[in-house]
Amino acid sequence: MPIRFVAAALAAFAFAGGAFAQLLTERKIFTLPQYTTVGGKTIKDVRIGYESHGRLNAAGDNAIYIAHFLTGNSHAAGRYKADDKVPGYWDDVIGPGKPFDTDRYFVLSADTLVNVNAKDTGPGSVDPATGRPYGMSFPIVTMRDFVNVQKALADSLGVKKFAAVAGPSMGSLQVMEWAAAYPEMVARAIPVVPLGLEANPYIIQTVATWAAPIVSDPNWNGGDYYGRAQPAVGVAEALKLAVLSARHPGWADKTFGRKWAAADRNPLQDWGNQYAIEGALEMATHMRAGASDANAFLYLVRAIQLYQVEGVAGIRAKVLAVPAKSDLLFFPDYYTRKMVATLKAQGTHVEVFEIDGDGGHLDGILDAAKAGEAIRAFLKK
Amino acid sequence: MPIRFVAAALAAFAFAGGAFAQLLTERKIFTLPQYTTVGGKTIKDVRIGYESHGRLNAAGDNAIYIAHFLTGNSHAAGRYKADDKVPGYWDDVIGPGKPFDTDRYFVLSADTLVNVNAKDTGPGSVDPATGRPYGMSFPIVTMRDFVNVQKALADSLGVKKFAAVAGPSMGSLQVMEWAAAYPEMVARAIPVVPLGLEANPYIIQTVATWAAPIVSDPNWNGGDYYGRAQPAVGVAEALKLAVLSARHPGWADKTFGRKWAAADRNPLQDWGNQYAIEGALEMATHMRAGASDANAFLYLVRAIQLYQVEGVAGIRAKVLAVPAKSDLLFFPDYYTRKMVATLKAQGTHVEVFEIDGDGGHLDGILDAAKAGEAIRAFLKK
Repeated sequence: MPIRFVAAALAAFAFAGGAFAQLLTERKIFTLPQYTTVGGKTIKDVRIGYESHGRLNAAGDNAIYIAHFLTGNSHAAGRYKADDKVPGYWDDVIGPGKPFDTDRYFVLSADTLVNVNAKDTGPGSVDPATGRPYGMSFPIVTMRDFVNVQKALADSLGVKKFAAVAGPSMGSLQVMEWAAAYPEMVARAIPVVPLGLEANPYIIQTVATWAAPIVSDPNWNGGDYYGRAQPAVGVAEALKLAVLSARHPGWADKTFGRKWAAADRNPLQDWGNQYAIEGALEMATHMRAGASDANAFLYLVRAIQLYQVEGVAGIRAKVLAVPAKSDLLFFPDYYTRKMVATLKAQGTHVEVFEIDGDGGHLDGILDAAKAGEAIRAFLKK
Repeated sequence: MPIRFVAAALAAFAFAGGAFAQLLTERKIFTLPQYTTVGGKTIKDVRIGYESHGRLNAAGDNAIYIAHFLTGNSHAAGRYKADDKVPGYWDDVIGPGKPFDTDRYFVLSADTLVNVNAKDTGPGSVDPATGRPYGMSFPIVTMRDFVNVQKALADSLGVKKFAAVAGPSMGSLQVMEWAAAYPEMVARAIPVVPLGLEANPYIIQTVATWAAPIVSDPNWNGGDYYGRAQPAVGVAEALKLAVLSARHPGWADKTFGRKWAAADRNPLQDWGNQYAIEGALEMATHMRAGASDANAFLYLVRAIQLYQVEGVAGIRAKVLAVPAKSDLLFFPDYYTRKMVATLKAQGTHVEVFEIDGDGGHLDGILDAAKAGEAIRAFLKK
């Protein structure tokens, strides 16, 4: 497998390099003694990871919250160590002098309450009531739950108002929940590659198909696999589906073409012979699967399905929607258009800036810098 | 599960009703003593199903060939019995007085050499050399192989020239192969919801993800499941992925909305509770899975991956490309545009008629009548 194909496939997981001066950060932990979910269940000893950049002013109103995508986490910008190979996923737009300018703003980002990568609160954490991992007995959670915990974090840090709440993909769902749940606290909402104000049934089914290979993996074992063989094959298949949905034929043509995975192994001649794109995604997703919690993936899928913003009429934030032209997952022509129409009809200030390109949905993560000037201008409005 | 949801999901498999006078047909069998594949393997005792409508004229040049989609078969129009509930998949456009007018043309359509539904030649048929089903030892085949066998069928019937070769989705791949493989025999090519002239790596990976759940199903057993438990769960998952790719959010909104599969079972409360679209697709695909051969599905997936037309420069047919505006599988803005550019650059006569709608890729099957007048006009050119 040529290394460049693997690198290209790994890049699909969106850890882009930055061209600016080094920004260092650390992963901190926020704890809550207990939290009651939208579904009415109480979770004790909540722990989530977070990071921040810049300084909160005395008024507590120069904050920006960054919400992450499905397979992302709180590491939005900078590096934990100077020699980390890759910075946080939105390092291109967060930092000194960048669109989310850490010289001016206090930029905060946290792990979602259930997180694919983090080993804090979630199905993989220990249920204080049993002393064993929750597994699928962890409460079903929603985007609103994620935002409520983020709100508690913000309160604990003295944040009074967010100049903006921004985030790509699943982050955009949290952005709109923020604007509706805490309208007095959110001056601007910047949903990037946005889904809109609810999960359409098409997306409900799309993410259901991502979950299916995990549940079908015999190692999943009803979610009880901690300390045993992991359902890594199912997770890898889930990631393949997610990555593919988040890309575009233009990206595939440029990166792989119709090359075979091995130059002497023609797919016409043997079932084991693959195309380059298949081999690269296979390797990249299996590398990634080991670091991902299968149950957490299922919880996030359900949270996406449940997404339906309550309180849209109460939104007071100005909104800058940033779709990506080639997005084949959250189609601009359908989802963004619908959200913009709803918001405009109720008198909300809405602007749209479309990211040009052929990288698909992931342009909202990897190419967010293309919206940099639009974001700068919007933050002044 | 409300019946209308199931019906809507089943409609995704594209057997539309017709408004015209009853057309009756029968499934006939074409046999070839042997056929040597593009990959160099010889298959003995080839049998494929076919049907025809209308009469071939003395010159043998009033024929039209209709090529079917992935999960389709030779049953393109009319009914086998007067009380059949559904006619062939393109009954809206094939028949007396319809765009493919069976009063004027001899309309022929055949099963692909390997076919998901048919029980003739393919991995599920008996290898004369062993007396047992081939399974995955059946030769890997290509679109060109399908067309070569169709050519032998046409020769056997006295067809000298096709006024048109037409077909939707995977049928469009056969259409372009026909035009390139037998340029002197194809006056017009009508690829509907076309992929273009080769499978882009994005499609290569898309169909690979459809194959994955079959191979992961323990009942698949390396393809050796004949006379045993079938990999029906894997096939159902494969069909779910295929149907979803072939649809569009607009269709999903109109058909299902955010309704739950059962009105008293909120997906927020229990993992077993689903949305209506999930329940409907689950039921529809499991009903369908029993009639589909898992191995045949894998062979067609590989045939799609291998698709790359040789001899494009030799195409002499006039081409009418009929993309669907809302197609999220074979994107008009990428695939159709690319094909049209290539053909125009070499001086081929190319026209494009786009089917409007929000049904997705399946508009090319279910709503082909929208292109009816364009097809009529094109057949006179």
